[in-house]
Amino acid sequence: MSSFQATPADKFTFGLWTVGNVGRDPFGEPTRTAIDPAAILSKLAELGAWGVNFHDNDLVPIDASASERDAIVEGFRRALQETGLCVPMATTNLFTDPAFKDGAFTSADARVRAYALQKTMRAMDLGAEFGAKTYVFWGGREGTEVDAGGKLLDAMSWFRDSLNFLAEYSEDQGYGYKFALEPKPNEPRGDIFLPTVGSALGFIATLDKPQMFGVNPEFAHETMAGLSFPHAIAQAIDAGKLFHVDLNDQKMGRFDQDLRFGAENLKSAFFTVYLLETSGYDGPRHFDAHALRTEDEAGVWAFARGCMRTYLVLKEKVRQFREDAEIQAAIEAYRVRDAELEGLSKGYSRDKAEALKSRAFDRGELGRRGPGLEHLDQLVTDLLLGVREPARSSSASEAEATL
Amino acid sequence: MSSFQATPADKFTFGLWTVGNVGRDPFGEPTRTAIDPAAILSKLAELGAWGVNFHDNDLVPIDASASERDAIVEGFRRALQETGLCVPMATTNLFTDPAFKDGAFTSADARVRAYALQKTMRAMDLGAEFGAKTYVFWGGREGTEVDAGGKLLDAMSWFRDSLNFLAEYSEDQGYGYKFALEPKPNEPRGDIFLPTVGSALGFIATLDKPQMFGVNPEFAHETMAGLSFPHAIAQAIDAGKLFHVDLNDQKMGRFDQDLRFGAENLKSAFFTVYLLETSGYDGPRHFDAHALRTEDEAGVWAFARGCMRTYLVLKEKVRQFREDAEIQAAIEAYRVRDAELEGLSKGYSRDKAEALKSRAFDRGELGRRGPGLEHLDQLVTDLLLGVREPARSSSASEAEATL
Amino acid sequence: MSSFQATPADKFTFGLWTVGNVGRDPFGEPTRTAIDPAAILSKLAELGAWGVNFHDNDLVPIDASASERDAIVEGFRRALQETGLCVPMATTNLFTDPAFKDGAFTSADARVRAYALQKTMRAMDLGAEFGAKTYVFWGGREGTEVDAGGKLLDAMSWFRDSLNFLAEYSEDQGYGYKFALEPKPNEPRGDIFLPTVGSALGFIATLDKPQMFGVNPEFAHETMAGLSFPHAIAQAIDAGKLFHVDLNDQKMGRFDQDLRFGAENLKSAFFTVYLLETSGYDGPRHFDAHALRTEDEAGVWAFARGCMRTYLVLKEKVRQFREDAEIQAAIEAYRVRDAELEGLSKGYSRDKAEALKSRAFDRGELGRRGPGLEHLDQLVTDLLLGVREPARSSSASEAEATL
Amino acid sequence: MSSFQATPADKFTFGLWTVGNVGRDPFGEPTRTAIDPAAILSKLAELGAWGVNFHDNDLVPIDASASERDAIVEGFRRALQETGLCVPMATTNLFTDPAFKDGAFTSADARVRAYALQKTMRAMDLGAEFGAKTYVFWGGREGTEVDAGGKLLDAMSWFRDSLNFLAEYSEDQGYGYKFALEPKPNEPRGDIFLPTVGSALGFIATLDKPQMFGVNPEFAHETMAGLSFPHAIAQAIDAGKLFHVDLNDQKMGRFDQDLRFGAENLKSAFFTVYLLETSGYDGPRHFDAHALRTEDEAGVWAFARGCMRTYLVLKEKVRQFREDAEIQAAIEAYRVRDAELEGLSKGYSRDKAEALKSRAFDRGELGRRGPGLEHLDQLVTDLLLGVREPARSSSASEAEATL
Repeated sequence: MSSFQATPADKFTFGLWTVGNVGRDPFGEPTRTAIDPAAILSKLAELGAWGVNFHDNDLVPIDASASERDAIVEGFRRALQETGLCVPMATTNLFTDPAFKDGAFTSADARVRAYALQKTMRAMDLGAEFGAKTYVFWGGREGTEVDAGGKLLDAMSWFRDSLNFLAEYSEDQGYGYKFALEPKPNEPRGDIFLPTVGSALGFIATLDKPQMFGVNPEFAHETMAGLSFPHAIAQAIDAGKLFHVDLNDQKMGRFDQDLRFGAENLKSAFFTVYLLETSGYDGPRHFDAHALRTEDEAGVWAFARGCMRTYLVLKEKVRQFREDAEIQAAIEAYRVRDAELEGLSKGYSRDKAEALKSRAFDRGELGRRGPGLEHLDQLVTDLLLGVREPARSSSASEAEATL
Repeated sequence: MSSFQATPADKFTFGLWTVGNVGRDPFGEPTRTAIDPAAILSKLAELGAWGVNFHDNDLVPIDASASERDAIVEGFRRALQETGLCVPMATTNLFTDPAFKDGAFTSADARVRAYALQKTMRAMDLGAEFGAKTYVFWGGREGTEVDAGGKLLDAMSWFRDSLNFLAEYSEDQGYGYKFALEPKPNEPRGDIFLPTVGSALGFIATLDKPQMFGVNPEFAHETMAGLSFPHAIAQAIDAGKLFHVDLNDQKMGRFDQDLRFGAENLKSAFFTVYLLETSGYDGPRHFDAHALRTEDEAGVWAFARGCMRTYLVLKEKVRQFREDAEIQAAIEAYRVRDAELEGLSKGYSRDKAEALKSRAFDRGELGRRGPGLEHLDQLVTDLLLGVREPARSSSASEAEATL
Repeated sequence: MSSFQATPADKFTFGLWTVGNVGRDPFGEPTRTAIDPAAILSKLAELGAWGVNFHDNDLVPIDASASERDAIVEGFRRALQETGLCVPMATTNLFTDPAFKDGAFTSADARVRAYALQKTMRAMDLGAEFGAKTYVFWGGREGTEVDAGGKLLDAMSWFRDSLNFLAEYSEDQGYGYKFALEPKPNEPRGDIFLPTVGSALGFIATLDKPQMFGVNPEFAHETMAGLSFPHAIAQAIDAGKLFHVDLNDQKMGRFDQDLRFGAENLKSAFFTVYLLETSGYDGPRHFDAHALRTEDEAGVWAFARGCMRTYLVLKEKVRQFREDAEIQAAIEAYRVRDAELEGLSKGYSRDKAEALKSRAFDRGELGRRGPGLEHLDQLVTDLLLGVREPARSSSASEAEATL
Repeated sequence: MSSFQATPADKFTFGLWTVGNVGRDPFGEPTRTAIDPAAILSKLAELGAWGVNFHDNDLVPIDASASERDAIVEGFRRALQETGLCVPMATTNLFTDPAFKDGAFTSADARVRAYALQKTMRAMDLGAEFGAKTYVFWGGREGTEVDAGGKLLDAMSWFRDSLNFLAEYSEDQGYGYKFALEPKPNEPRGDIFLPTVGSALGFIATLDKPQMFGVNPEFAHETMAGLSFPHAIAQAIDAGKLFHVDLNDQKMGRFDQDLRFGAENLKSAFFTVYLLETSGYDGPRHFDAHALRTEDEAGVWAFARGCMRTYLVLKEKVRQFREDAEIQAAIEAYRVRDAELEGLSKGYSRDKAEALKSRAFDRGELGRRGPGLEHLDQLVTDLLLGVREPARSSSASEAEATL
């Protein structure tokens, strides 16, 4: 049995804020002490991670002086060199400070919008110093509880103006950033703008340089809205817009849980890994989660190790899935191909339209055909539970498929 | 007090399937008998509606012969003439027949995909005969329960191919349709493709002729995913993509209820009407809802009248909202304008970036400012409840605003 | 038009933690400074509140010395006397301190369970000093994220043992407390024990002295689970167990919002007020909510005033509802009475059973009858929106009811 | 590797309505033809089921004559004898017929309430003929969409009167039924009375003979409300009220899906099996689910086989869980026992109270302790995924536990 031990080749990353989470929540005080960023790097490297990400203020306190900033940056750079970890992604904290209580780029206060631009440019500078190539925007405070303020349409404009501005800034500075918008439906705001992966994709189409923008879907955020995460990333992949991904877990229809990857729904986690591993995605496998508030520091590292281990186990199951003759036969049986009809259905011409319109279809037969999806889904259940026999004879499989 | 009586100038429309709903549900048999389409038109006209919409099979049974079809069409045309109702929108039923049990344009069966194209072209022909100018796509069966079938990415391609094909067909036929995609998160499928308004907007950006496509947001569908309907239509308006709208009501996180407009959440309904009435939207105010299954035919018409009446009451409140000096003052107080900063924040230049980066902001002050949103929101509550005094003296208002 | 100005006779109460909330959330720092309890009392009294409630540590810091405690108690008593406010309810904070991170009465650590008992007894002493007669238990940390710990059944036993112990303590001390369990489905724990009003009612039946225990339903908590708050309190009233009530507002299926009463769903708020005002409930109308994090202190008091004002407006609408002839006629028409059948259906005897079994019912007729619920519901919509004409002639009403 | 082949000793049961489901939904016509009850029995027996359950009208059409009924009963009895299947549970269909559109026992129409009693008594007679010992009440139509009807409190009374009546009827007839109430939050009604397992437990406490009543929790129903099914059945077990169980699967916060057991959330399914297999529950393992609408009859039997197979796989994993030394050590480490404090905390006396109140607790230490829950939960993840090494050396385990 494989050791499922992470290595840098697996491209696992964590945010400083994830393993550094101190366990404060709306109803309780911190249960853990903060861990020094250098110590975080050291431990993550030991566990096999590839890189680390940060918000500006995860590294540099919001009120640090220039010299304090430089000293912190220098120390962090050293720790990166010692551990061999990279910084593939950076982002701005536009949500903790009370200044952003009613939004950053979409605040009704023009001064806050301007300050958010300033803070983001500086944070982009910081990320670039560490070689980050993906820049994430999580607009956690961009939203409303009181729609009577009348800014719903203005907010879209302000948001667009800001992103257009920052895209130009990145080009002007030669940073080479790809921008990834991270959607979330609610919390901390009543309703957050760009609530789903689709909303972000739709918004990107209205920007000046849409090619610079993609999405950073998060398992928990899409799941909070009761949506399928595999479906969301499939749409992003189809659109060529999967620029980053945030892995964790979550129950539907409740507060943002940020659970250990695979902690809640192993099947959705499996199809997530399937899509990441088979679609050509080669970005970081980023875990945007944190240990339960009940845990001490040992629990934090158990959490981090668990995220990576479960990913690797599921990756191995993806390999088995693709090599399992019975599963692949069931998938093939699910599809009905018809070269002639497929040709007629794609690439309009008047002739094709007329051919299709005059064609006789047997509705009854189309409706009666059994696609074998319960059978296929049970095979996957068996695969996930580890009770598929590895070298099943094809005749046995066929026998079971026949009823 | 106004009569709140609908007239055709209000542009209210109903689907034949809405007032014609017979009250069947997953656990029970119909409680009402079907109403003849002509009788529906007559009653809707009497109640003040402007138009009526249909799926192909609401009007013409799926297995009607050509001559039966023609007779039905002729009769319906006569009824329209007699009542003065128009048909602004048409659509295809791609969900009732078992042939579509695993999707129409995204079925894994190429024959079903081809049949769906055929059926939609014919339905477009039918709609065009009645002058429909908006064509709606509700992909209710486009989705999955079993992601193991492996079609998540193919489905996006198939869906795109179909929509591209049909756009060409519309142009080739000179129908002049605008296409409106109607998103829904789930039900009847476990997960439906293009689950939210944003998803549809994102998908449109990948089509050959995106300018021909917009969205048909539905209150209930967006609400099922726990998302804000006013926020969703604001994004559609911002993108120039609000081509149609489906009004009804719904509780979050449950089965598709299709309640009478305003039956559940009057505040969301108010902001919906606000956006429709103030954004320049001039399409139909379409009610995609149905009477409760408990009701007889009298209840159906009470339902239809109630949808329109509540809309008109809320429209009147929108007028009051815009003319209420205290409310408008609270909105104005909510915003902080700063011409210099607004100029710097929009339209990138290196100089602007440097000016912004070197600017000193008083974070503390930005965070302390009270935007007055609880006060404003209570004024709206009072307005909705009808307890705002119409001619409030400004001094009294100010006294209350000061605490 | 009424002033809708609260007075102590309305029995409105607030928790110190509600208006005292400083606007910290999982993603952001406080936006407001703490208000001194005495200042809170003064302002609440000015606004017309009747009383104030507290957790032990809202008043006395968890690490206060005995003399500090006594000084605080003395100061608070004075402030109560000066303002005339009472303390009808008290409770224990068993959630903020890290000691309770995995539960209090249901912690897997026997020491924590014992400490929770100690802390609660002391808090009961404190409440009793101020004359509190209702003691609330909100078990916010009683729950799990990891069911593998295997304590699901033990937790029920431990919880029961603790409540039985504390009931005896109250009797032994002569405190005369009624205990009110406050359910919540999740947050801060993944799943909280006794997640709904019903769960608490079910649990009470397993206690040694169930008559001492009732429930404290909270609008937001029941709504988080997508359940109807009016239905929940109706079950509590039916069981004689509505000992207290927490009023606020919330969207379904998301994080705990604790919005201003009526801020989200005016219709549910109306039926809540209806049940409280017509069922004989004479306890406090307690607002367990807080101002939005965007607000400054003026916003806090606007919030508090708004809670009470909306309650009073809805109470006036309850009066109108009961005096509105058309509404009452619609309700009467909704019911079919049959004295003979009602007699047979209640209070079993073999004769009644045989009479019922041999009775012929006309299923068709029962199914066809229209109950007029769409009509009735629209009348209530009109009432809520303030567009019912006060002195409608009965003939006009009948005309509209006929279709 | 085990065959995971069901046998009657496993006590698996299906409803006639489950495998007999024809695939009709709110948006589509049936995709399958009905299967004759005798054919269902034959196939279920072949697959290893133990028994079968029915609503009265699953077996006998609602409008069957007395002689038709007798013929059907006789044929079914023969089929049971031939297959060796039993009928452990029966229930009444009080939801399909339009007569019940506004409720059965809680209808506002006294005639409907009386008819519901009649129909239930007759269905109890039918169940008793086949030896059923558990009688289930699913009040799917007992609820409202329009609370203005004012029946919320009356409905509780009517429901109670009916259940009290039927309990007496069962005793009077000597049927020996145990009654199991099955809760559901919504669908088909907007809000259903007794929405959760807890609500049913709370209601039972108000009945004349509570000892005759328990609950029939359903995985999908509790999950629809976003509640934990393992927590719900734990409360029922604790109260001695788990009289029956309905196994299936479901995503939170959406329409009633009735998926194959384990199809969505394997972890919740595991803890469900854990509680059933370790708590002394010895009733049926009933699957209240149905094949996806996409499937043909082969899919139906794949579905049925899958339900049982997944249960058996999870049952085997429960055995492994209990025998896994590392897992059991982690559970033991999670608990802190303290005989003295446990003695003081249970069974009140004034001395114990005083001892507890004067005890010094080290809050800091209680808060710092790491319970090891992330570690334990990951072990369970590994167990579920089949990647636990069966004979792990304890030293290796300890090494991993130490960080």
